[in-house]
Amino acid sequence: MAQNRNPINVAVLGATGAVGQRFVQLLQGHPWFRIAELVASDRSAGQRYGEAVRWVLPGNPPADLAERVVLPLDADVQSPLVFSALPADIAQTIEWRLAETGHVVCSNASAYRMHEHVPILLPEINAPHAALVRVQRQKYGWGTGGLVTNSNCTSAPVAMAFAPLRQFGIAAAQLTSLQAVSGGGYPGVPSLDILDNVIPFINGEEPKLEAEPRKMLGALAGERIAFLDYAASATCTRVPVLDGHLVSVAVRFYEAVSEEQIVAVWRDFRGPEPVPSLPSAPPQPVIYHSAPDRPQPRRDRDAGSGMATVVGRLRPCPVIGGWKFLALAHNTVRGAAGCSILNAELLVAEGLAG
Amino acid sequence: MAQNRNPINVAVLGATGAVGQRFVQLLQGHPWFRIAELVASDRSAGQRYGEAVRWVLPGNPPADLAERVVLPLDADVQSPLVFSALPADIAQTIEWRLAETGHVVCSNASAYRMHEHVPILLPEINAPHAALVRVQRQKYGWGTGGLVTNSNCTSAPVAMAFAPLRQFGIAAAQLTSLQAVSGGGYPGVPSLDILDNVIPFINGEEPKLEAEPRKMLGALAGERIAFLDYAASATCTRVPVLDGHLVSVAVRFYEAVSEEQIVAVWRDFRGPEPVPSLPSAPPQPVIYHSAPDRPQPRRDRDAGSGMATVVGRLRPCPVIGGWKFLALAHNTVRGAAGCSILNAELLVAEGLAG
Amino acid sequence: MAQNRNPINVAVLGATGAVGQRFVQLLQGHPWFRIAELVASDRSAGQRYGEAVRWVLPGNPPADLAERVVLPLDADVQSPLVFSALPADIAQTIEWRLAETGHVVCSNASAYRMHEHVPILLPEINAPHAALVRVQRQKYGWGTGGLVTNSNCTSAPVAMAFAPLRQFGIAAAQLTSLQAVSGGGYPGVPSLDILDNVIPFINGEEPKLEAEPRKMLGALAGERIAFLDYAASATCTRVPVLDGHLVSVAVRFYEAVSEEQIVAVWRDFRGPEPVPSLPSAPPQPVIYHSAPDRPQPRRDRDAGSGMATVVGRLRPCPVIGGWKFLALAHNTVRGAAGCSILNAELLVAEGLAG
Amino acid sequence: MAQNRNPINVAVLGATGAVGQRFVQLLQGHPWFRIAELVASDRSAGQRYGEAVRWVLPGNPPADLAERVVLPLDADVQSPLVFSALPADIAQTIEWRLAETGHVVCSNASAYRMHEHVPILLPEINAPHAALVRVQRQKYGWGTGGLVTNSNCTSAPVAMAFAPLRQFGIAAAQLTSLQAVSGGGYPGVPSLDILDNVIPFINGEEPKLEAEPRKMLGALAGERIAFLDYAASATCTRVPVLDGHLVSVAVRFYEAVSEEQIVAVWRDFRGPEPVPSLPSAPPQPVIYHSAPDRPQPRRDRDAGSGMATVVGRLRPCPVIGGWKFLALAHNTVRGAAGCSILNAELLVAEGLAG
Repeated sequence: MAQNRNPINVAVLGATGAVGQRFVQLLQGHPWFRIAELVASDRSAGQRYGEAVRWVLPGNPPADLAERVVLPLDADVQSPLVFSALPADIAQTIEWRLAETGHVVCSNASAYRMHEHVPILLPEINAPHAALVRVQRQKYGWGTGGLVTNSNCTSAPVAMAFAPLRQFGIAAAQLTSLQAVSGGGYPGVPSLDILDNVIPFINGEEPKLEAEPRKMLGALAGERIAFLDYAASATCTRVPVLDGHLVSVAVRFYEAVSEEQIVAVWRDFRGPEPVPSLPSAPPQPVIYHSAPDRPQPRRDRDAGSGMATVVGRLRPCPVIGGWKFLALAHNTVRGAAGCSILNAELLVAEGLAG
Repeated sequence: MAQNRNPINVAVLGATGAVGQRFVQLLQGHPWFRIAELVASDRSAGQRYGEAVRWVLPGNPPADLAERVVLPLDADVQSPLVFSALPADIAQTIEWRLAETGHVVCSNASAYRMHEHVPILLPEINAPHAALVRVQRQKYGWGTGGLVTNSNCTSAPVAMAFAPLRQFGIAAAQLTSLQAVSGGGYPGVPSLDILDNVIPFINGEEPKLEAEPRKMLGALAGERIAFLDYAASATCTRVPVLDGHLVSVAVRFYEAVSEEQIVAVWRDFRGPEPVPSLPSAPPQPVIYHSAPDRPQPRRDRDAGSGMATVVGRLRPCPVIGGWKFLALAHNTVRGAAGCSILNAELLVAEGLAG
Repeated sequence: MAQNRNPINVAVLGATGAVGQRFVQLLQGHPWFRIAELVASDRSAGQRYGEAVRWVLPGNPPADLAERVVLPLDADVQSPLVFSALPADIAQTIEWRLAETGHVVCSNASAYRMHEHVPILLPEINAPHAALVRVQRQKYGWGTGGLVTNSNCTSAPVAMAFAPLRQFGIAAAQLTSLQAVSGGGYPGVPSLDILDNVIPFINGEEPKLEAEPRKMLGALAGERIAFLDYAASATCTRVPVLDGHLVSVAVRFYEAVSEEQIVAVWRDFRGPEPVPSLPSAPPQPVIYHSAPDRPQPRRDRDAGSGMATVVGRLRPCPVIGGWKFLALAHNTVRGAAGCSILNAELLVAEGLAG
Repeated sequence: MAQNRNPINVAVLGATGAVGQRFVQLLQGHPWFRIAELVASDRSAGQRYGEAVRWVLPGNPPADLAERVVLPLDADVQSPLVFSALPADIAQTIEWRLAETGHVVCSNASAYRMHEHVPILLPEINAPHAALVRVQRQKYGWGTGGLVTNSNCTSAPVAMAFAPLRQFGIAAAQLTSLQAVSGGGYPGVPSLDILDNVIPFINGEEPKLEAEPRKMLGALAGERIAFLDYAASATCTRVPVLDGHLVSVAVRFYEAVSEEQIVAVWRDFRGPEPVPSLPSAPPQPVIYHSAPDRPQPRRDRDAGSGMATVVGRLRPCPVIGGWKFLALAHNTVRGAAGCSILNAELLVAEGLAG
């Protein structure tokens, strides 16, 4: 495996945005990866990263990177591995081009999530989907290139909570999310909109939350993913919380299933080898919290260094004819940059990158 | 009707609490009612109201009432009409005793909401339930006494939104609430719990939200209320919002019904006579907001002087097999003190009080 | 006076911004003024106001104005009276041109506040400064035109609190402000910056807070204002509050002065005739709140319909050698649109506009 | 030194409160100390810690301690070292008794801070004050016992920022604080008071902020501390921030001093030996942040693992005749539990405890 090789150079695209900053933060001290290139829009290109970035995380940009000059979007990226925190419209052009020129792109953008040959990778759930990279290389002649995405930030806790439950036959899911402001990027949600308020609408979010988990939870069948087939209905809201997306979930199964069974499969859930030993994999991907008032965004978002999904309040739901519970994940770690890094680790471990 | 008579003296029980203060605020300048007595727990009794109260609303306690001496809970209340903002356990004893001694009690407490001869009154929805006061008088020999309640603060927007939809046959409802901190009273929710956070649990709230609207939406049949029979499943959460409870609702009907039909019955919904002409009745009890991001607590809670319910985002729900939408009402006005005052106005107009 | 004449047509410039919206809100039902024209940047011009505006205040834009088409910045404005909520750089060009073409401009912009022939008008404090409009007409040949400004939003509570104290000889003032997010306009302060945080810097604010009150509190001497001469030092911070700027003030006087004297002059302070009878003038411009924990932004910002300044916690300050206290005013009412409207009322009452 | 000895058993008094929890959190994995006893009020005594505590920090109570039974306040404490997070009135009795019976008490309570033989210890500033423990032993016959306190949470950033400036002769300080809600303990500040608001008063805080730093910055002279003699004036406010007290400071020196001098002495400031090598000592106790908008509570409170004080915005102040700046420290780490632990480390290193 990769532990003994030299560090792999990586580029971060969209490095000055909120998710880009999270990539930079999480890659500090990474055992396999070393940030070699910081790429951002023309507004930032040419400046030192420390000048160009409006750092929204605690503390300051890492001192060594602060001095690095930001490259423009059309730079000739050298790093074999690329993390993309680009907006969807820009990602559309650039990510494909990078894959064509032999780079492995791990993207947080939504542009290619629904492309038939691009996986939405959450290693604990669907590590085998990584094989689509081989399909990409064959179909598109990408050589060493490849393109994988991580899920929408709200889909992450839902897909993680559902993964161990697939064995019971998921038939339908009713979802109401309470999402943090960091999901809207920077500057993102104006304080005049969200202080003492809830915004019960996030543009484009509900279709993603209804569709993406079905792809993530599906099975690779030849060159395509067979979506998990269940009915989904989502309502997405924004609440005055900094980080951590909470989802109120009701789910119906094809089989009869008990509370004990659900709690047990959540507790025992682990990704397939080699996922549990990857550097960014949390020891327990799904944590059931038995207290009556958990999960809570502020108190549970950092579980497993922000990579765990915390579930709680499992109760029967007479309306959907199944169970209801709450699920939470850190939206810019598990739901964005942290997941992309775990995806890259999987690709390296599988010999598909690096 | 009452407009030309002398003002009716009223007492406010639990006058120093958060809902008690809202009673005091809303009764300022009321055309029919005049606060004659302020009653509170032993801790406050004997002090001037201005001293005893920790005023949580904007501004200050009304200057004239600030000088009034607070009476103890065992005071010999003189006012014929009593508004109660007491905690449920204390209300249990005191409200019944006051009704026995000839007072008409309009209560915000939950103690008697599920009593078979006590209505949960929301005049636009179920004005005929007020006739239970006559049943009470006959059964319990209360003379001029009576006891009516208003709903739990979260039940209010749900019951109001459902009332015009009863004609389509409500079969099932899935509910996730996002509730304001004022619903927890004062001191109530600690800031250490709710800043940058959501608490996905409110003690005792979900059973109320599942049961109360079914009673409120039911029909008076002789001496009892026949509950509206539908399945309900609730998840209640607390968010960092001061006032205004927002509920994400999915509802299934027995009949097929179109978006236009729903919007039309909401828009045209009015309470039965004499409700629309009561002083605290809003001109339009249910307001459908067509903007994609409404209702919002801060921007919509004061609609109809806090007495309207604002609904929005009506969309088909494939999971419940019906429709989903969001509903909002001001929890300490329509969901508490304002509703109790409207209830009292109805009783006066019907000759049952005053 | 103006009460019996026909309503005066007014234009609102920058009508879609946060302060522009406050103008629109406060002018609803105004006894003297009627909004005839809504003007905004090219992005909004040509759209209906209801479409163009992202309404940040409670409720919705007034129904009649929502249908009005927004005019471009270079429109040939017809209204004799113009309220300006433009950004300073745009105001620089447009306000002067409007004054030249015979309009009376009451501006919230900072562009001309320090111009020697333009007053920063707060009628209770410096109504005589309105005479500068005559100087403008003579010097610049403006005919019926004129240009007056209101103060920076943070200067308002300081100048109001200081005005009654001028008689004691203000020698020095140390100021730390805690300012609301609405002072930053819309979209303004990102929620990612201000939730669970304080930003101890507001670009350009401290020099304004040090300089403007000295002009406002000065005396008109011929064609110029003699600034009140005192030393001032300001630190301005942004806090997670929607509306209401709070300032921690320490002040030294040339004379010895007692707590009773200060409280008395605050309580008795009234503007000169005809200010107290103008429609937007609060009954008591400066309210001393004797509770130990006031003023508070949420509880006191709406005092006097947002036009009063609330002061409290008056205590000796051994460091400055005088007194310290806290002062609060509503930043978008008294500190912006409300003050401009009061200024216009004064000009009409003085025969200088309308 | 202590690194090679066995861990020292410690007791935490008031272990269920907000500061008590911070003690528990910070002592996890401590290289010298091991929590042997958890002590709390009668309400909690006898329960498992996991049951008794309402954990307000992220995550959950440490798993091993969660099973520990909480001891009552009158328990016969065995640990030689005791950390106290008791309320002042209870601390008054218990801390003295524990010192008499041979325990070294490191207290966060205010009860004995102003006692002439008890130091307010901040090791970087006044490590020599620890010698008062020898005075205590001699005067009161305490044997191995002793009692040291840490400062009020708001005094910490002020004293830390002033310590390197003592050499210039501090003459006067004007202070306005913006304090976090965690300073009020749990349940502490009600959310109804602080959401969208500032409370410009904290009971008893201003006298502490005026007096304590003068003691901390003083010099040990025989058996007493000679206070640093300067004039101080404080205004303390509460803002909607979870952790981190920010103070707006203006200071006058007896000597002329330049910006460069101040920045240099802050940057170069280190505690005397052995302080810099103590486990909880931050590498740089005072960090000058040169960005125009720092320090900010959320972004800077965790500097130096919460043990650093971050200062910024150094500018001349014409009113005080000196300089003004902002200072920030984490109120429950550097301003409470973290400082007490550092104090205990110093006492151990000096052979006064353990």
